[in-house]
Amino acid sequence: MAKEKKLVESITSRDEDFAQWYTDVVREAELCDYSSVKGCMNYLPNGYAIWENIQASLDKRFKDTGVQNVYLPLLIPESLLQKESEHIDGFAPEVAWVTRGGMERLQERLCIRPTSETLFCDLWSKTVQSYRDLPKIWNQWNSVLRWEKTTRPFLRSREFLWQEGHTIHATEEEARERTLMMLNVYKDCLEEDLAVPLVVGRKTESEKFAGAEETYTVEAMMYDGKALQSGTSHYFGSGFPDAFDIKYADKNNELHSVYETSWGFSTRTIGAIIMVHGDDSGLVLPPRIAPIQTRIIPVAQHKEGVLDKADELLSALKAAGYRVNIDDSEKSPGWKFSEQEKLGIPARIEIGPKDIEKNQVVVVRRDTREKLVVSMDEIAAKLADILETIQNDMFDKAKAFLDSHIDTAVTMEEMVEKFKKKRGFIKAMWCGDEECEGEIKYNTGGASSRCIPAEEEHLSDVCIYCGKPAKHMVYWGKSY
Amino acid sequence: MAKEKKLVESITSRDEDFAQWYTDVVREAELCDYSSVKGCMNYLPNGYAIWENIQASLDKRFKDTGVQNVYLPLLIPESLLQKESEHIDGFAPEVAWVTRGGMERLQERLCIRPTSETLFCDLWSKTVQSYRDLPKIWNQWNSVLRWEKTTRPFLRSREFLWQEGHTIHATEEEARERTLMMLNVYKDCLEEDLAVPLVVGRKTESEKFAGAEETYTVEAMMYDGKALQSGTSHYFGSGFPDAFDIKYADKNNELHSVYETSWGFSTRTIGAIIMVHGDDSGLVLPPRIAPIQTRIIPVAQHKEGVLDKADELLSALKAAGYRVNIDDSEKSPGWKFSEQEKLGIPARIEIGPKDIEKNQVVVVRRDTREKLVVSMDEIAAKLADILETIQNDMFDKAKAFLDSHIDTAVTMEEMVEKFKKKRGFIKAMWCGDEECEGEIKYNTGGASSRCIPAEEEHLSDVCIYCGKPAKHMVYWGKSY
Repeated sequence: MAKEKKLVESITSRDEDFAQWYTDVVREAELCDYSSVKGCMNYLPNGYAIWENIQASLDKRFKDTGVQNVYLPLLIPESLLQKESEHIDGFAPEVAWVTRGGMERLQERLCIRPTSETLFCDLWSKTVQSYRDLPKIWNQWNSVLRWEKTTRPFLRSREFLWQEGHTIHATEEEARERTLMMLNVYKDCLEEDLAVPLVVGRKTESEKFAGAEETYTVEAMMYDGKALQSGTSHYFGSGFPDAFDIKYADKNNELHSVYETSWGFSTRTIGAIIMVHGDDSGLVLPPRIAPIQTRIIPVAQHKEGVLDKADELLSALKAAGYRVNIDDSEKSPGWKFSEQEKLGIPARIEIGPKDIEKNQVVVVRRDTREKLVVSMDEIAAKLADILETIQNDMFDKAKAFLDSHIDTAVTMEEMVEKFKKKRGFIKAMWCGDEECEGEIKYNTGGASSRCIPAEEEHLSDVCIYCGKPAKHMVYWGKSY
Repeated sequence: MAKEKKLVESITSRDEDFAQWYTDVVREAELCDYSSVKGCMNYLPNGYAIWENIQASLDKRFKDTGVQNVYLPLLIPESLLQKESEHIDGFAPEVAWVTRGGMERLQERLCIRPTSETLFCDLWSKTVQSYRDLPKIWNQWNSVLRWEKTTRPFLRSREFLWQEGHTIHATEEEARERTLMMLNVYKDCLEEDLAVPLVVGRKTESEKFAGAEETYTVEAMMYDGKALQSGTSHYFGSGFPDAFDIKYADKNNELHSVYETSWGFSTRTIGAIIMVHGDDSGLVLPPRIAPIQTRIIPVAQHKEGVLDKADELLSALKAAGYRVNIDDSEKSPGWKFSEQEKLGIPARIEIGPKDIEKNQVVVVRRDTREKLVVSMDEIAAKLADILETIQNDMFDKAKAFLDSHIDTAVTMEEMVEKFKKKRGFIKAMWCGDEECEGEIKYNTGGASSRCIPAEEEHLSDVCIYCGKPAKHMVYWGKSY
């Protein structure tokens, strides 16, 4: 593996100060920045383009399962938000209120949606009448607002971009199936396109979505060992829709409750990409969602024929369907290499007079820095394989990291010790009591229950904290 | 041309009551409905899917000209909105104000964006320093909110979906070129994909965007002869960015102003599609933006082999890349035809036992109701030509309507008389005085200046109202 001199001194080492490293990478790759609107972010072209590719992947996966897109209003009347008590308790402290419109003071204040279950249910309560109207499998791509106190690019901000899917069904079985189906769509998108491996499972009572019966989650592990909740899918049963009086008549004209789900996936997954794959030179993007997959960098471009050949290659690769650009600026090749690395472009193609002489190019992988000499005649065909290899290797590397950073513990001493010594998740048994969950978090300095997997291992008979009979095996971890 | 019995009695005749016809079509095609959030709409799957296709077309056209997508915050601090005086005067009366966030009363109130010039300029004032940072050619797909008093589906609502492009340039020439380039992108998208012909030109002073130096517009004519402003492109000069203190250093390190543009295109264009192409049976969608281009309707589907053959055809057409579905419900064929017509699906394919015997299908065009018998072996190939013909014929028909509903007038009596007798636009000379513009509007019962075309005709030497020397030829019309 060839070594490159590190040119980017503007990025802090990630082993030295991970939080600063993250901020540096986001800034240097020009993904987003803080807005002068407090708590909000500007999604800049490089960051937004990643989101567009994630959207395209997810949206296609959604539609393949029968999802239809819609758009419901930004504002929710207070009376509507209050219809389901757990939901309002969960969201009321963190919404923004509109109290004036135009020149008038509003009779009823309106909140900016923190999530839209109430609006979907309100609409369905007026339009769903018969079994023929079911199921509704709807989704919207939008932004939501939650009045957060702290802000970190992509991870936490008052306004963020996401999709929220909402469905209602005639039977519990169908709704439960949809809940898990969408969880799997998230898992597939994250693992196949973002190359982010996951731990998947169900949330405990205390970590559930406000108003849901069950919340399922996909949890990714960042380089610092912390968890990032990367998508959630909720099963509401009929409690939530009952509060809105959504009923349907079956074939015999008998009225029944409907069963509801919702599921969301946000721009925080861009944070996951950064913190799972990035390195001390900057961002490393998986080829499938990279806005630019390869950048051509001419070497000694002032020499005759170099730029012509590079432009020829650019056209050929564009025609072959690659997302490709060229850096033919006046900067030095070393500077250009460094910029391409900061941006996380998965592969660069170096082409200089000697390469042209030999009818070849040099492909340098962003993830491993491996250099590959490829014949000019074959590059358009072979680049696809190289990108596919990068994609797979990135996933494998991240998966090996995840697996090697999951440990087990059967006593609190062991758990506390292990969280101190090593970053990552710890699997441990739990009695199901919220108090024990709180004590475990307190004693480990912040490790919360991440999820209960579908297939639990039997690590011990008793709860790691209280010693009473264990109900579940839980993944514990500190989190973003 | 074959005649179909009219099955849809739920749609008012458009010649009888155009406004009611419009409401009926929107409802029957399930495009959108009123939300319980006053003044806002729910964009339902059938309506939103049209918007997605328009977005895809426009977004590709944007990117082909170098546009980058971004996302800036939903909220604008009051002090920021006030930085440009004409702009705040134009928008202040119609914004919604957030005064509380979470549990706190805000120090400074925030408005929900009615448009985002101020946010873009604020960001650029902090990030643009040198000529190397120019141009910025950015766009966002979002919703904006204006506190309207009245609501009509797609045409006017408090919150609506649109895109807003914002650019800054080092020279006036480049900015002016971009203003017209985007106007042409709108024109091409509307004419080529939405099959909506246009009158194109520049707005008068009184009809300009708040804060702009020039506003250009594409104006479509609805079936009732009224104008629908379908996209606008604004040139700001350097006044607006100067108010935000955006300056760049040139190669000699001298500071200069930048030149700004913005341009927007909204979901009201779905209203244009409805009112230009729709008929008494419902919606008529142009094939290029129709979510479903063709629907297969089996006839006598209980007979052996009919459904199998129909499904086979469905697979073949899907594989060939068409957006196609099938109605194999228990409803009668007549009912199914009527539903397909309400939804505006450009072509239906009827397939029954006799067709199967003859190895053929019957294609019925939505726009003309023409029936075409096509061999089963050729339908996958020929359907593309049929759809293309429909697209072109729809444009030609709309263009003929537009052309035949533009008249001229040289005296006020003539103008008033013509507006009374016939729907449409009237071309007439104008002195350039805002008072005359107002008088013309008053005397014609509401005809406003739609635009001044790039190539003005010389209809007379004097203003149609005051008789002073004419400066411009203006298109006048009543509008939505």
